[in-house]
Amino acid sequence: MNLIIIAEHDRLDGNSFRLVDFRAEHIRSVLNLNAGDPVEVGLLNGPTATARIERVSPGEVVLCADSWREVPMSEPEIDLICALPRPQTLKKVLIASAMMGVRSVHLIRANRVEKSYFQSPLIQAENQLPYLVEGLAQGKLTRLPRVQVHDRFRQFFEDDMPHLTLDSTSTPLRLVGIQETEYSMHDVFDRTAQEIAVAIGPEGGWVPFEIALMQSLGFRPFTLGRWTLRVEHAVIAALSQMELLRMMPSGR
Amino acid sequence: MNLIIIAEHDRLDGNSFRLVDFRAEHIRSVLNLNAGDPVEVGLLNGPTATARIERVSPGEVVLCADSWREVPMSEPEIDLICALPRPQTLKKVLIASAMMGVRSVHLIRANRVEKSYFQSPLIQAENQLPYLVEGLAQGKLTRLPRVQVHDRFRQFFEDDMPHLTLDSTSTPLRLVGIQETEYSMHDVFDRTAQEIAVAIGPEGGWVPFEIALMQSLGFRPFTLGRWTLRVEHAVIAALSQMELLRMMPSGR
Repeated sequence: MNLIIIAEHDRLDGNSFRLVDFRAEHIRSVLNLNAGDPVEVGLLNGPTATARIERVSPGEVVLCADSWREVPMSEPEIDLICALPRPQTLKKVLIASAMMGVRSVHLIRANRVEKSYFQSPLIQAENQLPYLVEGLAQGKLTRLPRVQVHDRFRQFFEDDMPHLTLDSTSTPLRLVGIQETEYSMHDVFDRTAQEIAVAIGPEGGWVPFEIALMQSLGFRPFTLGRWTLRVEHAVIAALSQMELLRMMPSGR
Repeated sequence: MNLIIIAEHDRLDGNSFRLVDFRAEHIRSVLNLNAGDPVEVGLLNGPTATARIERVSPGEVVLCADSWREVPMSEPEIDLICALPRPQTLKKVLIASAMMGVRSVHLIRANRVEKSYFQSPLIQAENQLPYLVEGLAQGKLTRLPRVQVHDRFRQFFEDDMPHLTLDSTSTPLRLVGIQETEYSMHDVFDRTAQEIAVAIGPEGGWVPFEIALMQSLGFRPFTLGRWTLRVEHAVIAALSQMELLRMMPSGR
């Protein structure tokens, strides 16, 4: 935990927060902090602060946080579209998405997604929350990604998706990772885009119908490279390549 | 498993191989293959083939592999230098390294590496092997990365390292990931380099002495982006960004 994520329901009053779960244990036993020590905290969906610990006892920590700092906006905003992976992989995708500042995660049905995955408890938001918070704590971020599950492929792309980007006045950049293309992320990236939807397929890949439908809606196919990656690795690779392109001097 | 990794000690005679462990179970119960079916196999540190299954029974699979295909050489060759992470993370680093075609992994001591990590059973090559093979099977590769453990930081860089790149006639590109720099991977990458050593620090980062020593030996510092990543994610991000730069048209 690089940042202790706290929430409004931890607030005692004013600037005091009381933690009674694994976070209290982490502060006491892993960080070895005592009353008077500073600790980095982030308010869920809010600012961060260097808090001061007021009291530490087994199972309870009280801390005081003032002089909050706003977390800078992410830019471009990334919406991840991910063929619903098996639960163990989904956990890793949720952690990585929160850690890397993704705005929203859309978990969709695809031909090569096993139906049983939609019965997993992880489909429920309350079961996703611990993994998202773990990612935020690692990445020193506070904004919880929106996670939505869509169990119809075509309906997601044709009906739901246009409404998902209403924040924007312009059409976002749409990208889809596939293996059978020569185009790299560099070829399809647009550094002026403020919103990017990037679709990562299931183990085994998208089927041709799915790629054709996405392409008809403006998704540009790209390959991450010569590898055969797992879903959670493909997510990290795609975000990393976009971040590199964002950092590169324009005009190159 | 995208590729069943087989080894010389599985060979019955000629082109026949007999598998009696988890690979046999995987072929029978996960892939649901029967006698006569094709299956993709890779000979450890050797070629790949589409094998034909000759016999399947509980706990045993016999297959025949001829018409071997050479696995293309990786280029550039990547040598990963990684501050020894805790065992759970090391497993993920080994899997990722094999999956992504890394030539060698050097696990080194650094100021922020806990001494106890050097007592882990995972320091032993025989305990690393399953994770490396898992990575090869995922990545459809066959070359086992060389893994070496170096428990002295300065000695590794000043004495051991020059000898590690004797394959080469030229000095390889040397890169070190740090947080406190403006340089991206694009700024430090050299597409003509045939060998690249890339160093990834411990959780908490390198200390200034370590960065200074590496820089004095020609390591160029770069940042992967705005994130605070775990070691295993930093490895994937660095390899992904190098792969993107490799794919980009030259002169850009």
